[in-house]
Amino acid sequence: MRRVQVGIVGAGPAGLLLAHLLHRIGVETLVLEAKSRAYLETSPHRIRAGVLEWGTKEILLAAGLGERMEREGLEHRGVYLAFDGALHRVDFPTLAGGRSIWVYGQQYAVRDMIRLHLERGGEILFEHEVLGVEEPERNPVLVYRTPEGRTERVQTEFAVGADGSHSALRGLIPGARVHRRTYPFAWLGILAETRPAAEELIYASHPRGFALFSMRSPTLARNYLQVGPEERLEDWPEARIWEELALRLDGVAEVRPGPLLEKSLTPMRALVVEPMQHGRFFLIGDAAHVVPPTGAKGMNMAVADAVALFRALRAFYLEKDPTFLGSFTEEALRHVWQAEFFSYWMTTLLHTHEDPFAEGLRLAQLRHLGESPHLLSFLAENYVGLHTTGRWAETLKALA
Amino acid sequence: MRRVQVGIVGAGPAGLLLAHLLHRIGVETLVLEAKSRAYLETSPHRIRAGVLEWGTKEILLAAGLGERMEREGLEHRGVYLAFDGALHRVDFPTLAGGRSIWVYGQQYAVRDMIRLHLERGGEILFEHEVLGVEEPERNPVLVYRTPEGRTERVQTEFAVGADGSHSALRGLIPGARVHRRTYPFAWLGILAETRPAAEELIYASHPRGFALFSMRSPTLARNYLQVGPEERLEDWPEARIWEELALRLDGVAEVRPGPLLEKSLTPMRALVVEPMQHGRFFLIGDAAHVVPPTGAKGMNMAVADAVALFRALRAFYLEKDPTFLGSFTEEALRHVWQAEFFSYWMTTLLHTHEDPFAEGLRLAQLRHLGESPHLLSFLAENYVGLHTTGRWAETLKALA
Repeated sequence: MRRVQVGIVGAGPAGLLLAHLLHRIGVETLVLEAKSRAYLETSPHRIRAGVLEWGTKEILLAAGLGERMEREGLEHRGVYLAFDGALHRVDFPTLAGGRSIWVYGQQYAVRDMIRLHLERGGEILFEHEVLGVEEPERNPVLVYRTPEGRTERVQTEFAVGADGSHSALRGLIPGARVHRRTYPFAWLGILAETRPAAEELIYASHPRGFALFSMRSPTLARNYLQVGPEERLEDWPEARIWEELALRLDGVAEVRPGPLLEKSLTPMRALVVEPMQHGRFFLIGDAAHVVPPTGAKGMNMAVADAVALFRALRAFYLEKDPTFLGSFTEEALRHVWQAEFFSYWMTTLLHTHEDPFAEGLRLAQLRHLGESPHLLSFLAENYVGLHTTGRWAETLKALA
Repeated sequence: MRRVQVGIVGAGPAGLLLAHLLHRIGVETLVLEAKSRAYLETSPHRIRAGVLEWGTKEILLAAGLGERMEREGLEHRGVYLAFDGALHRVDFPTLAGGRSIWVYGQQYAVRDMIRLHLERGGEILFEHEVLGVEEPERNPVLVYRTPEGRTERVQTEFAVGADGSHSALRGLIPGARVHRRTYPFAWLGILAETRPAAEELIYASHPRGFALFSMRSPTLARNYLQVGPEERLEDWPEARIWEELALRLDGVAEVRPGPLLEKSLTPMRALVVEPMQHGRFFLIGDAAHVVPPTGAKGMNMAVADAVALFRALRAFYLEKDPTFLGSFTEEALRHVWQAEFFSYWMTTLLHTHEDPFAEGLRLAQLRHLGESPHLLSFLAENYVGLHTTGRWAETLKALA
């Protein structure tokens, strides 16, 4: 049977970053991915949020994966909140210690990571579906199906489930608790060839519902509408979407209709798996937790998980120190719950609620946000990302 | 029929303060109160929170009602949060622009207001139960029962319902919406002759549940335990209460058992009536809104309502300007919803939840509160009270 030190299931941001970081320090990895490379890089169904926290950008650059991101991505030094017919700017450098965020589509980041990892000798097997993990506790063997339909096995020292929000490997942790929250709305999203409404993101809270005006590039707008969880795409013809976007933007900026490249409905839900490990098997990224997209935290959480697990595996392989492997769940869940809390807060604050009491609380908080600096600072520091732990600095140093 | 300019139903903080402020500028008032003076001043069932915001204290002093409060009350320059086995101080002067709070029992404040209002020629009819208000829209007539059982009437120019959380007059506003929220816990409260656990309030969040350690004086402790909404007082003998208080205080300070003077169960609920007015009839204080006690906002909201309605009636009587009467609900609801939001936030943050996802969000926020200054500043500025509106300064000036 083939042997590898770390077997990683899933070529998303979490799995690819972990593989690449380990590869850089000489730990042998194998990434198994059920989908094709073309699908990952070009399928419109894979278009995700593209907001990179300050720390995420730093890690990608330090890992040697951020050159194109730095060239083609957009630095954003703030976002706008729109309510009561006015724009309120959240200025990141002022409110969050000089930091900013980076806007770069997740799909682009994945494309870059695949290319660079392969160029530098990393191994990714596309269209290889993992069917299961045998003996995850002590001696994990990944069982997978090749594109030709054969079932094969690879013996690993550690196995990592990074197989996304519909993870098939989540069940491998005996007694794991899966904490769930379903939010009573969905996002209707469009990608359109047109100039975005503003140079920075606008989070608009309107009595008709929430809307987000974002972008993939200066000529590609990515906009979202809060809709009911039971809505159907066919009830939203193009003209109705643009009209509704304009109503919710309420004149504070201009929506310019343009050809639609994609249209999607995303339910709003959250999920946290606890613990995130069992013996020599670990879960990272969306496989371990899902957030609603409001706080733009999904990819950043995947990166934070990869960094935490990298630190633990690095200590194990280079220093024979298993401590961080033992405390991985505790370490990871700290940032996971913080991000869940922030995403919950942003979601609850910006979406309209049916219960008039909840709506009264929400409007008071929104008004307060426009009058007091403290909640704005809280928003800013969480949006650009909290990387105050030693782990982050240590990892950046190790990669330097 | 007897005539009076402003008829006020209820001799609680809202009604008494409004009556006294109007009396000072020569507007004739009559306060009708169903209970006896002795009951209001001494019944243990009337023991309420005694945290006065900075602005509340300023108004009572400016109105000439605060002399004894200033002498016998306790200035608190902070509160403690206790969690994870440690005390975290919220320092008000540092975090909230030099301001502090004042601890003085609501019952004491009411006793002072009754005495001073009567001494200065104000009129309060105790044991006079109001049965209804005729023609509240244009020509309000208060119908009441005298202690001798006679039904009498008084013709007013304005009628004010300040008859508390179980208000019988709330129904007089046609089409009013009553927004309610029931929290899934209750507070088991005790008043005991013993030294309080600390010189300032301790809000303790423990896995066994929330506990509050407060005081009426340096020798009277007022402590509370979060319990289920279905709990019964008889299931909580004295020894069990003291034991549970000590467990939840978790060694960060000392609980000293002492003779119990009172024991009570308070359900945690919230309520907002909208609008708070109809023609020449107005609702103020608990009659218009109820908050859970966590943020200590109840009496402060009553005072804020009285100040807002005083400003409106003062403009009407002294300047023939009805504008503020027209916008009373809008003006009052701004601070009402802010206080509801803050009370909701404190309640949700500090009480344990059965849903593990809600509990995960809560613990993340509590940890964040210990690590970042912004939420602490938000807590501090709301706790000492937000009095940034022109109304407050204007009223203080008018009373000077």
